[in-house]
Amino acid sequence: MNNELKFIGEIKTPYNTLKECPKNITPDGPICEVAIYDEYKDGLYGLEAGQKVMLLYWMYKDENRKATIGASHHAPGEYGTFAKRSPSRPNPIGIGVLEIVEIKGNSLFVNGMDCLNDTLLLDIKPAIRDELTMK
Amino acid sequence: MNNELKFIGEIKTPYNTLKECPKNITPDGPICEVAIYDEYKDGLYGLEAGQKVMLLYWMYKDENRKATIGASHHAPGEYGTFAKRSPSRPNPIGIGVLEIVEIKGNSLFVNGMDCLNDTLLLDIKPAIRDELTMK
Repeated sequence: MNNELKFIGEIKTPYNTLKECPKNITPDGPICEVAIYDEYKDGLYGLEAGQKVMLLYWMYKDENRKATIGASHHAPGEYGTFAKRSPSRPNPIGIGVLEIVEIKGNSLFVNGMDCLNDTLLLDIKPAIRDELTMK
Repeated sequence: MNNELKFIGEIKTPYNTLKECPKNITPDGPICEVAIYDEYKDGLYGLEAGQKVMLLYWMYKDENRKATIGASHHAPGEYGTFAKRSPSRPNPIGIGVLEIVEIKGNSLFVNGMDCLNDTLLLDIKPAIRDELTMK
């Protein structure tokens, strides 16, 4: 079983340290560029401004890829890794559902990403609620 | 940059061929077991029946990991890979948001998964709407 990820692009945000990053997507946050590598640009065909997409990105920072029990940013008490959205997890895949504000060339523009500048992009999927209205 | 996925468990479904698989999650579909490997069981701490979780799984079937333009199951016309939810994409990561029906030992039980039997699990995250009500 091949278990290697391919990186399809990069996310440009104003955040260069984890301390600066918001803890979640903030729909009224700054505009961010999601730049797709040329090799994958065909995949954007049919996406439109105003549509909601789910972005998957690789929040890889260190070798701590375990499942543990610890504090949460969102509630008192202790939670296992899979009961939290912390980037510290076996597969540090971040997920955000955002509206496409604009598409220019190979780039999507969205508001309020919660990741570091130059975070590597893994996937773009139409968000379920929009997919359902397509039926 | 380490780009290797870790598999944290396996999803048991009644589907042994792609033809049998539903095209999407079906909330009234058959009960399916999401079995977490022993090494990652601490990560389940704090998850509860009735909670909605997002499951990430590896729909890896072949070496076609490109972005292309083609037909969709959900609408007429042609769409790029990132405008569709097809498993044929650079990173074949499937995503479903489901309610935990029951937790027994290292296993979660959910209704209506859309993947093949023995599909490898990548992550479990609390679904956003539940996370928001935790604040």
